[in-house]
Amino acid sequence: MPLNIQKIELYDTTLRDGAGAEGISFSAADKLAILQILSELGIDMIEGGIPSSNPKDAEFFIKAAATGYGTRLTAFSSTKKYGSAPENDSSLSGLLDAKTETVCIFGKCGAEHARAVLNISGEENLSIIGDSVRFLKAHGKSVIFDAEHFFDAFRIDKKYALAALKAAAVQGAERLVLCDTNGGSFPEDIARATAAAVKAFPDKIIGIHCHDDTGLAVANSIAAVQAGARHVQGTLIGFGERCGNANLAVIAANLQLKLGFALNIKLTALTWSARRIAEIANIPLAGDMPYVGRAAFSHKAGMHSDGVLKSPFSFEHVPPETVGNDRRILLSEISGRAAVAEKLNALLPGIKKDSPVAAAVLAAVKTAENAGYQFEGAEASFLLLAASVAENRERVIRVVAADVDTDLNERMSRAKLVLEARGAAAAGSADGNGPVNALDTALRSALGGIVPEINSVSLTDYKVRVIDSGSATAAFVRVLITSSDGDDTWSTIGVSTDIIEASKIALLDSFEYFLLQTERKNKIK
Amino acid sequence: MPLNIQKIELYDTTLRDGAGAEGISFSAADKLAILQILSELGIDMIEGGIPSSNPKDAEFFIKAAATGYGTRLTAFSSTKKYGSAPENDSSLSGLLDAKTETVCIFGKCGAEHARAVLNISGEENLSIIGDSVRFLKAHGKSVIFDAEHFFDAFRIDKKYALAALKAAAVQGAERLVLCDTNGGSFPEDIARATAAAVKAFPDKIIGIHCHDDTGLAVANSIAAVQAGARHVQGTLIGFGERCGNANLAVIAANLQLKLGFALNIKLTALTWSARRIAEIANIPLAGDMPYVGRAAFSHKAGMHSDGVLKSPFSFEHVPPETVGNDRRILLSEISGRAAVAEKLNALLPGIKKDSPVAAAVLAAVKTAENAGYQFEGAEASFLLLAASVAENRERVIRVVAADVDTDLNERMSRAKLVLEARGAAAAGSADGNGPVNALDTALRSALGGIVPEINSVSLTDYKVRVIDSGSATAAFVRVLITSSDGDDTWSTIGVSTDIIEASKIALLDSFEYFLLQTERKNKIK
Repeated sequence: MPLNIQKIELYDTTLRDGAGAEGISFSAADKLAILQILSELGIDMIEGGIPSSNPKDAEFFIKAAATGYGTRLTAFSSTKKYGSAPENDSSLSGLLDAKTETVCIFGKCGAEHARAVLNISGEENLSIIGDSVRFLKAHGKSVIFDAEHFFDAFRIDKKYALAALKAAAVQGAERLVLCDTNGGSFPEDIARATAAAVKAFPDKIIGIHCHDDTGLAVANSIAAVQAGARHVQGTLIGFGERCGNANLAVIAANLQLKLGFALNIKLTALTWSARRIAEIANIPLAGDMPYVGRAAFSHKAGMHSDGVLKSPFSFEHVPPETVGNDRRILLSEISGRAAVAEKLNALLPGIKKDSPVAAAVLAAVKTAENAGYQFEGAEASFLLLAASVAENRERVIRVVAADVDTDLNERMSRAKLVLEARGAAAAGSADGNGPVNALDTALRSALGGIVPEINSVSLTDYKVRVIDSGSATAAFVRVLITSSDGDDTWSTIGVSTDIIEASKIALLDSFEYFLLQTERKNKIK
Repeated sequence: MPLNIQKIELYDTTLRDGAGAEGISFSAADKLAILQILSELGIDMIEGGIPSSNPKDAEFFIKAAATGYGTRLTAFSSTKKYGSAPENDSSLSGLLDAKTETVCIFGKCGAEHARAVLNISGEENLSIIGDSVRFLKAHGKSVIFDAEHFFDAFRIDKKYALAALKAAAVQGAERLVLCDTNGGSFPEDIARATAAAVKAFPDKIIGIHCHDDTGLAVANSIAAVQAGARHVQGTLIGFGERCGNANLAVIAANLQLKLGFALNIKLTALTWSARRIAEIANIPLAGDMPYVGRAAFSHKAGMHSDGVLKSPFSFEHVPPETVGNDRRILLSEISGRAAVAEKLNALLPGIKKDSPVAAAVLAAVKTAENAGYQFEGAEASFLLLAASVAENRERVIRVVAADVDTDLNERMSRAKLVLEARGAAAAGSADGNGPVNALDTALRSALGGIVPEINSVSLTDYKVRVIDSGSATAAFVRVLITSSDGDDTWSTIGVSTDIIEASKIALLDSFEYFLLQTERKNKIK
């Protein structure tokens, strides 16, 4: 029941602030993939990086402009250095080079912060904010002013904090975003200071940017919106330095489903998008993440699963499908038929979710999931599994024997294998740069004579995740491989305690999926 | 600066509600260890389990009573079944058998919930609450009434929800704990309903029990305290079904450090206690968990690490040592000599950032980073590198030859190796669950005779990351291993195109670091 209809803008900084999290490092291809996911999800503005900080970011902006998603992109940097002319400032010229419609610059809102970190006076700080905004406006940019340390500064000296906003506002910045930079504020502080900014700048869009150092980033962002902010910054799944940025997925679902605010986001795509970004970052998505985690709607057998079946509202505050997630009853595994039917459509158009075929595929998916498979990032493997269950499709390639030997002192791996395909047998053997590379090369050498078309398949990405890290070196590993034939790109998965075996499964699935697609294209012709 | 001095009770349910989280299963020994940790940390009341639900829990209560920590323990169960006499009710008799001073029983606060789940009327529901509390009081127990679904019930029918509390209150329950059972409430709802309960029952202790389904469990718990609640339920590090219970570590730090409430908890032991419980549960503690996570006070190089060194309050809302955590300046490509010198202090106290030794170590770090190393998650490997550069320390263990063979059809890996240590040579050979596990086992078997102390090192985590995923199976992989000797925990890294080689490097670093630490401890003695 919507209580309050007002459009709220979402601004994602996974590619900039999110990349500040420990252990995260995005390639340019990763960044493009994330840009696409966030754009299709309906995030209004997407911060791409700091173009002046490194050539990788600068290159990304050029590539991104060539996609259809460039219009949502913003570039980030600091205000100019004190004493330098704007036109000679590398930070500002980097912003222009990024060629985005909108740029976001941060400046300090506390005189004390400016003195301690920049070694300039409060007045000098105001002048660099104003000069920077004026310069960017003169170059036709839409400007977001990120008001660093705003809430701490407001507690110390309300007047100065508002003067910093004013320095940007009078030069034409369209958005003033209030930052809780060290993440230490509480909802009542946020509400009070945000209300003051909303009142002081009625013709600007006031935004909020929170960090989770007190576990209150979601609550603080919502408190700001309730106080009049109309622009929310965060990272889709909370990545960020220290304790992370505000989690946009949770905030968006709360604002739309629970508080009735209007947003442009497609909530039913929320869970999928969150999981894909985690996959790209190679960071396991927290199972207990609200709305999108794997366990967010899981009920262990007993009182709760009984209660939730009798009366879902007892243990589920929203229906899981509203955010694209599933209810999971942990012992009886009854979830997901609708999702499976939807995916099966690619193979069997028009299939109903209550058909026996959908049920059989679902059962096969559950069995695989119990063994550690996860098809969210590996739809090609899902379709192969479905083709085998729904259409009794047999695999073209069968490995009969394989052995990989690694000599750690010679730094050499050698794979030998025998396989069968199309009624013929072939042997392959290859040396490689590590055991998986040797196996890959040996497979291709054996297949070359009997399934020559696989030569057009190249691997573009290879990822490894340890599933139960706590079992240390005896843990299960999940290998995800992305392949391409120049036109299409697909991903496959393999799971085993043995990384070579897991890689073999994913490699074979990659070739097999390519053959399945070729068969289907030939049928259509 | 304390704003408000009033004592708040903390009630931990890691052993009961926390055990409802997916993947968690505590043995009786685990439960005793957690009871000790929570008691020594200063948690006021510790819920031990549901004695009527299974013999393991019943046995735990008997064992726990024999420790010095039994007085803090509470037993949990439901109100009696409708229609059964209290003295014949297994739930209530289980509570008496647990022999705790205090018991906690839950009952429904909504007539609709009672009808839907228990199939009884609102009146009948009130009668089972009253009868259950009367029976327990007659047996000398201090009684906590856990008011299930209180906030949802209050929204639907305020009067009935308060009548359910009254049914327990008039029979002598000392504490009335308001539960947001499905985790769907917002701080303003929590504040309003809590204030109503505080006003209606001025002679009772009102408590709060939140779940994190909207990412607001911390904010909601604090809102309740600000509305007059004086008893907070949760789990120390947020374990719990679905999205977890309220995180008591974060709430306690917020209440004491930021809002000035008085608690019995020893905050300086918070980080250690949180990490120990995660280890016992065999679940990696989220690095970004506020206050206690490994990354909670981590700063990546660049503007932030510069800023935090000049002015800690810019990027740290509280000093890390107040909660027993540490500031970490992450070593990364862009980190400079100041960060390296700070790290080197552990090895060479008092070293200056402009000393030639610091410069030599920095150069070695850069070389390793260019080869794909990253020391931000692997400080033990950094210290080994530094010890070799700064002190010419030689390694104790040297692998002379190693070979790992994997037969993919037999699903078996076998490692054979020869190594030297302390002037002796040894050979090892082992089969394993995959090549890395075989290598690990073979290394330990070879070292057992000549460096027996490494038997106390166990691996607690194993992670693999592909660095240049785009090179597919020929990519560089980075292996991160976390090890423990029971007291300390450390992480090491290995990089290679060959995952077995990368694992070998990280494994050897883990053993070597343990030996380095032993040498240093012996020197101090």
